[in-house]
Amino acid sequence: MVRENHNILDCTIRDGGLVNNWDFSVQFVKDIYYGLSEAGVEYMEIGYKNSAKLLKGADAGPWRFLNEDFLKEVISKKTDTKLSALVDIGRVDENDILPREQSMLDLIRVACYIKDVDKALDLVEKFNGYGYETSINIMALSHVMENELAEALEEINKSKVDVVYIVDSYGSLYHKDIDYLVAKFQRLCPDKQLGVHMHNNMQLAFANTIVGAQNGVKFLDTSVYGMGRAAGNCPTELIVSHLKHPKYEVRPVLDIIERHMVAMREKWEWGYNIPYMVAGVLNEHPRAAMALRSSDERDRYVDFYDRLTSPEVMPTNHHSD
Amino acid sequence: MVRENHNILDCTIRDGGLVNNWDFSVQFVKDIYYGLSEAGVEYMEIGYKNSAKLLKGADAGPWRFLNEDFLKEVISKKTDTKLSALVDIGRVDENDILPREQSMLDLIRVACYIKDVDKALDLVEKFNGYGYETSINIMALSHVMENELAEALEEINKSKVDVVYIVDSYGSLYHKDIDYLVAKFQRLCPDKQLGVHMHNNMQLAFANTIVGAQNGVKFLDTSVYGMGRAAGNCPTELIVSHLKHPKYEVRPVLDIIERHMVAMREKWEWGYNIPYMVAGVLNEHPRAAMALRSSDERDRYVDFYDRLTSPEVMPTNHHSD
Repeated sequence: MVRENHNILDCTIRDGGLVNNWDFSVQFVKDIYYGLSEAGVEYMEIGYKNSAKLLKGADAGPWRFLNEDFLKEVISKKTDTKLSALVDIGRVDENDILPREQSMLDLIRVACYIKDVDKALDLVEKFNGYGYETSINIMALSHVMENELAEALEEINKSKVDVVYIVDSYGSLYHKDIDYLVAKFQRLCPDKQLGVHMHNNMQLAFANTIVGAQNGVKFLDTSVYGMGRAAGNCPTELIVSHLKHPKYEVRPVLDIIERHMVAMREKWEWGYNIPYMVAGVLNEHPRAAMALRSSDERDRYVDFYDRLTSPEVMPTNHHSD
Repeated sequence: MVRENHNILDCTIRDGGLVNNWDFSVQFVKDIYYGLSEAGVEYMEIGYKNSAKLLKGADAGPWRFLNEDFLKEVISKKTDTKLSALVDIGRVDENDILPREQSMLDLIRVACYIKDVDKALDLVEKFNGYGYETSINIMALSHVMENELAEALEEINKSKVDVVYIVDSYGSLYHKDIDYLVAKFQRLCPDKQLGVHMHNNMQLAFANTIVGAQNGVKFLDTSVYGMGRAAGNCPTELIVSHLKHPKYEVRPVLDIIERHMVAMREKWEWGYNIPYMVAGVLNEHPRAAMALRSSDERDRYVDFYDRLTSPEVMPTNHHSD
């Protein structure tokens, strides 16, 4: 039995917040942090480090606009589980970021589309200079042309970033695609660690994540009970059960689910359902499916499918996230 | 793009009946048959061909004890979609089986544990003599010793059976296990077609099925919306969307789900949940998890996990299925 060395990064609070507009109690965030620590999870993403000033009209919330003083109150005693935050290009105020030794955060992850990789690398450079671990998470890879990706990966490999993520934004990738992308990233970014962030539109988030792990990907994004936008993510409970390392324990994760997430799942919807599956199969952003699920037509699957596969141009709803 | 030739075998009625005690209306069975036909699905398993006499105390029901006259009424006009039935060793009365030319059925599948492979092959021989296509479905493969399996597969390869199934009864197999088992079956049963029947305890039913398909497995068991005992099966809508052949259409499957299965899922439970996941991870029969889900303690996950992982022997509930 090979003892594998991976880093599980649980992003329940950050990605799950896209489901319930970050309506998480402080007690829940404490419980999940200490539960994940007991489970052996290496990183927990505790929110976005975006700036409320730069996201006008958005609801403010502590997990969306992380504040260091607040964080110190919530996580009064840090464990071996490191903390990360995600920032979006154009939504982060660099002056909000403290040097790492004054911060609760260990890792700052920069999410961007392919066209903004240069902007992301500028940010990475700064955060790196402040002493943070950094990652760059290229979203919507399934919509990126090969030549553009190759160019970006070569730039990334020359940068100081620690980790490069393969993000299956639309939940449209199969295991063969993971094999292909991991090999490509390894070839073009040989000096970087890799990460995967998968979505569950086709019930493949866990399967794709372990295919990545087997192929040498080090950072594995998960969320407890799969909580995350639309079809959600690779469930933490499955990864912790699967990986062969004596430090991992599934029991504390089951405890979080039992105490908090069964009730949350009754209140908020995430996970596999037909509109998200259709979006995944068609390699589309889930926004149309999310709008459908919020409407009276939530179970009108055939109409939805016909709309998405019609060659005619139709108006679609656009959301900020 | 490789045009693959597979046989999808939808077993919603047969395996889904284990969820709702075969409480399916005739209209639903008609709708699913003609819907699957439009979707390009090659086989539909319409129930069990067990004998009510040999299953004393069991509720009678048309889909559990298929009757040819009744079937002719339900499926008044057969399409290209063939019909199959499953029989269990010791529960089938061979005198109930008509010669194929007088029957609505095309394929008879014999389910057995490894110790009963010889009995299964006797039945296969008879059904084969009546003109049916046949399969042997060895259950609980994850509990079978290698030497016993090798011996059984050599016997099976000498028999007249058409298809040998790899059945992940406990939903405990990973893609590496599928690679391993498919290679073993291909080596020891070179003259037979292979099939896979996967369960979704770890959200791997679809992933494992497409790994099998990619490795040369011909028969792929599915069910609409994943309906099947406990964590359920590989969803038909995902396989039909995935396989590259112009005959497959997902739209009729979405229509079945929209018209029937959303309401059914509200009434009856199947699919991923924590007790089934725990049973899968521990490579156990789902019966204890099913008993938990029917009790007041349905969301007591940590207790359940502690019970299943305790080294002490405990009484467990035994059910007939």
